[in-house]
Amino acid sequence: MINRLTIIGVGLIGGSLARALKAAGACDEVVGFGRNAEALQKAVALGVIDRAETDIAAAVKGAEIIVLGVPVGTMESVLGQLKPFLEPHTILTDVGSTKGSVVEAAKKVFGDLPPRFVPGHPIAGTEKSGVEASFAELYQQRRVILTPAETTDRDALETVRRMWQQAGAEVIDMSVMHHDEVLAATSHLPHMLAFTLVDTLARLEEHDDIFRFAAGGFRDFTRIASSNPQMWHDICLNNRDALLKMVQRFTSELNTLAKAIEKGDSEAILATFERAKSARDAYCEKNC
Amino acid sequence: MINRLTIIGVGLIGGSLARALKAAGACDEVVGFGRNAEALQKAVALGVIDRAETDIAAAVKGAEIIVLGVPVGTMESVLGQLKPFLEPHTILTDVGSTKGSVVEAAKKVFGDLPPRFVPGHPIAGTEKSGVEASFAELYQQRRVILTPAETTDRDALETVRRMWQQAGAEVIDMSVMHHDEVLAATSHLPHMLAFTLVDTLARLEEHDDIFRFAAGGFRDFTRIASSNPQMWHDICLNNRDALLKMVQRFTSELNTLAKAIEKGDSEAILATFERAKSARDAYCEKNC
Repeated sequence: MINRLTIIGVGLIGGSLARALKAAGACDEVVGFGRNAEALQKAVALGVIDRAETDIAAAVKGAEIIVLGVPVGTMESVLGQLKPFLEPHTILTDVGSTKGSVVEAAKKVFGDLPPRFVPGHPIAGTEKSGVEASFAELYQQRRVILTPAETTDRDALETVRRMWQQAGAEVIDMSVMHHDEVLAATSHLPHMLAFTLVDTLARLEEHDDIFRFAAGGFRDFTRIASSNPQMWHDICLNNRDALLKMVQRFTSELNTLAKAIEKGDSEAILATFERAKSARDAYCEKNC
Repeated sequence: MINRLTIIGVGLIGGSLARALKAAGACDEVVGFGRNAEALQKAVALGVIDRAETDIAAAVKGAEIIVLGVPVGTMESVLGQLKPFLEPHTILTDVGSTKGSVVEAAKKVFGDLPPRFVPGHPIAGTEKSGVEASFAELYQQRRVILTPAETTDRDALETVRRMWQQAGAEVIDMSVMHHDEVLAATSHLPHMLAFTLVDTLARLEEHDDIFRFAAGGFRDFTRIASSNPQMWHDICLNNRDALLKMVQRFTSELNTLAKAIEKGDSEAILATFERAKSARDAYCEKNC
């Protein structure tokens, strides 16, 4: 049982965690901190948090676990704000989509990654954002990646692991670098492609007609282009190297395919499509 | 009421049309033609077609409308086979995803686009294929594009229009070139991106881990990579010019975005993501 959980940034991710832990009876009190008092009051009204705080000292005081649910671009500033009030027993964790940059931010603020700071990332979400979009089942059957360091306190690590398990997730440990590479491939690159595709079409002269004749496949394919621009801006800049490496690999393969189409190289085109279909079908057997 | 409808290639698209017309009581007899006798018998057993023919002369004889439901790459060969048996009153139409190449195929076989050949394309489908995947509601609330020529028989055009309307679709006329450009943008390019993305990831060394940590957004984004490789091979080669033009526009915009990420140009990144999100949200208001 977590006595007091403080969520810094009560949006889809933090709000859903609070709902899940309450539903599981795994948390006594949830305190929410944010800059927007109105949004926080909404979170109280929705029963997502028990108490709203716009003062960081009050939000941090007596917390057993603090979950940082803010965009990765604001991590350093938020850590700087809460540092003076952080109590030695309190465990810190975050839900940022990039882990290298969060560890860097912690090092800048604390000199090193504090032993009781367990970097984390739930592989879950929707294209929506805000506490209104939160729901208790978001983490059911989903995976959460933790990227502890050698110096991470084992007790803190296991407490954070248990928290996510009680929210319904499977928890896996991974190195920071491996996390950032895997996520660049499966999440950050696809978001770049979806944003770029929709923007490319929106800039065509006949864009009204273009969207009018888009079919169901287009709706699913572009869903992630409705994601929060500021959040994805932060992710791009905070996982720049791994993301640009993936963009380059993708562009090179797209270029190879385009050349095969230009030359009418049926064998190469079919080989690409068949490899992709069998990889996607295999993925889907386990995950669809 | 259509007295006799012949479907050449009874798969998802042709099979769903047959089901929809039967459900609407808009068709008396559906004849199915295909090379695979076993698949045709399945279509009979499923009640999708009334009669299976593996002889083209018998399939074409007495048909009021013939629907070509074969991959666009085989259009010319199929038209060549049925030409000797085609009766003057019979209306021809197709469901191919590319229209320029189908018109070209008809010109090669008949010397010119026959007045009673109405090129068409239902903007509907799923990533599945085969008659087992067909269902009567596929065309409900969907759009069908017809690309008649100046010389197209008005009566034939209106008969094909009525057929699709009775299957539940909204029918729109468009020029061949405009159709091929619009579909390159909204369908053919997205399929290329999905196939290429999945293949790129499948070729990474750590591909097991890659797919293991893919989230829900990835599942939706890559759904169309499970589409039929042969069919999409045909589409790529049959809409080569329009598709390659769109690939080039996309690549150029992705390259611009990558440069903005590299330079940390927040303004440019945010502008792209915000334009994309608002275009996708606007599309979704009407179509989601």
